[in-house]
Amino acid sequence: MADGPSRGLADVVAASTALSDIDGRAGLLFYRGYDINDLTGRATFEEIAYLLQRGAAPDRGELEAYRAELATGRQLGALAAGDLASIARRQRPMEALRSLVSLGSADDRDAGSNASAANQRKATRLTAQQPVLIAAYHAARLETELPAADPALGVAANFLLQLTGSRPDARSAEIFDTCLVLHADHTMNASTFAARVCAATLADMHSAVVAALGTLSGPLHGGANEQVMLGLEAIRQTGGDPLEAVTSQVSKRLGQGEKIMGFGHRVYKTEDPRATHLRGMSAELAAASGDDTYYQMSRRMEEVVLTEKGLYPNVDFFAATVYHYLGIPTDLFTPVFSASRMAGWTAHIIEQHADNRLIRPDSEYIGDRGLTWVPLDAR
Amino acid sequence: MADGPSRGLADVVAASTALSDIDGRAGLLFYRGYDINDLTGRATFEEIAYLLQRGAAPDRGELEAYRAELATGRQLGALAAGDLASIARRQRPMEALRSLVSLGSADDRDAGSNASAANQRKATRLTAQQPVLIAAYHAARLETELPAADPALGVAANFLLQLTGSRPDARSAEIFDTCLVLHADHTMNASTFAARVCAATLADMHSAVVAALGTLSGPLHGGANEQVMLGLEAIRQTGGDPLEAVTSQVSKRLGQGEKIMGFGHRVYKTEDPRATHLRGMSAELAAASGDDTYYQMSRRMEEVVLTEKGLYPNVDFFAATVYHYLGIPTDLFTPVFSASRMAGWTAHIIEQHADNRLIRPDSEYIGDRGLTWVPLDAR
Repeated sequence: MADGPSRGLADVVAASTALSDIDGRAGLLFYRGYDINDLTGRATFEEIAYLLQRGAAPDRGELEAYRAELATGRQLGALAAGDLASIARRQRPMEALRSLVSLGSADDRDAGSNASAANQRKATRLTAQQPVLIAAYHAARLETELPAADPALGVAANFLLQLTGSRPDARSAEIFDTCLVLHADHTMNASTFAARVCAATLADMHSAVVAALGTLSGPLHGGANEQVMLGLEAIRQTGGDPLEAVTSQVSKRLGQGEKIMGFGHRVYKTEDPRATHLRGMSAELAAASGDDTYYQMSRRMEEVVLTEKGLYPNVDFFAATVYHYLGIPTDLFTPVFSASRMAGWTAHIIEQHADNRLIRPDSEYIGDRGLTWVPLDAR
Repeated sequence: MADGPSRGLADVVAASTALSDIDGRAGLLFYRGYDINDLTGRATFEEIAYLLQRGAAPDRGELEAYRAELATGRQLGALAAGDLASIARRQRPMEALRSLVSLGSADDRDAGSNASAANQRKATRLTAQQPVLIAAYHAARLETELPAADPALGVAANFLLQLTGSRPDARSAEIFDTCLVLHADHTMNASTFAARVCAATLADMHSAVVAALGTLSGPLHGGANEQVMLGLEAIRQTGGDPLEAVTSQVSKRLGQGEKIMGFGHRVYKTEDPRATHLRGMSAELAAASGDDTYYQMSRRMEEVVLTEKGLYPNVDFFAATVYHYLGIPTDLFTPVFSASRMAGWTAHIIEQHADNRLIRPDSEYIGDRGLTWVPLDAR
């Protein structure tokens, strides 16, 4: 037995993985041994999803076949598609995705099988469908038609097309593709861990992905990127000089012991390498947009939080303004995170099923002891 | 950093809880300090759900108010109710419950709030609705009307009424109520742990319960009770003397290194106390049914597994025959487990939200290192 609880399992090794690795001191992230600084701008999301799900970088033929499988796999199942309109009217985005993916197992011919080949096929379809579900949800709540997919486009460009109805310019598509690469996997984060705990009972991939989606929805995890944007908007709406407003409000909140969303990470002791790339893309998009206010506010916020608390921005902080400048509605930021992380979740589920052991920790009991039950009549 | 991985987190303390405690050496289980041997047959499921969710045994007035809240809370939400027929046609029971509970948040007026009072109300409604969802699913797949609830009945008797269409005899209702008491909570089991990992991102109760439902569906967890019954049926169908068939087939499978479902537990080193009570109820129902074959087969299986492997039956083993004799369809055994465990899950989510820390373990990296990305054109 361990001595006492390890609250939050910080520094406890819960599983072995060959998918990703973090060097928290150096601020490095690796996917299957490749430094993401080496991948950013040089590998597409499809290549990274393939790398994670299937174990090695695809050659040209493998990548073409995988792209074709993704394009075919985009088709939503009948049960989910049939309920889309009523769900979009009644559920917020992450609730809706949780419901829609849960319904999706009904139309997946491999549902219920944890065999390696079946898991690979499901992983591909889930990765293909997640951005389509987001765009379809958005169209349904606007009561518009979902723009048709373009089978020639990759996941990133096709998502922007189906979300906005217009074909993205090449650089926007490239930047969004890089966002998907940067969010694809991140060791034993809470949603991935929830997926592995679920999969370790030999529950199927859809169950594990649904567990991950619910976990990602929390404001301490995937919900943070949306909170960052809402925070920037709230500060800007107070009027006056937005940079001075950032300084005064952030200082005040830090002084009151509040947390500022988008800063700090349990694993990185220096800057999150994903934040570095996202900062650069945010600057580029801000300049191109003609209004770099949110970018400048973000830079100021960084300075204040680093000076006062010594905390660095995490992946959520600059993702917020990047998504904003790409025209993605703020309440779809966390769903967009899920569209990328689907690659990692499914790869972790494949890995868990391939060498499984039930994940069943102990707990420390801190309640009353030795009570005697008094029947109701005597209470 | 910990030294190396703790596979499956065995013996790692992941959280503190005042809800339940296990003494694995002595074979004892406690709910908030009360020995379940003291509770069995003396406390109702409603009293135990209240105890877990609200912190202490209810007095008469509190119990009456809670029963009334459960009776009102039975009403299914419009979104879930509207999709019930299509889901029942297309999804297996645990898939369907995962979808239906996910849809249910749309009609819960406290959805999205993690405040203590909101969580208490949601916990009560989720506990009230889970058995109704199971009965409604069963009616929908049979294309029959769901029998009307009787507000005067408790959770156990009302479930048997709505599932079968006939009012259960008093002893059957009492036995099923005891089954619900025995399954209500069990420290950091995989589904409860998944719920806490999810809730620890400050995701809401519906997300955490959906994660738990997916996790419970795995054959290494909640799915085991169904597998036990299917195993007994398969052996009986081979013909010949059923007890001799048990001996020969179980010996053969153990000799081949196979696991027998329903035996062994990571925590108990002696008999699971729940198994003791369930064995007694199985014997009683078997005798009353006029055909005790499955009970006798179970007893023989116990002997063989204990003699050959030194393993004791766990909670799933005798739950299978008890549910069978109560007329519950085999594919609803795991759903019935969820109807009881909902009390524990929701109590753990309340506890997690009340004193939260993100659950984010480390992982051990076992893959390649130092690879250099070769762009596709050069591969």
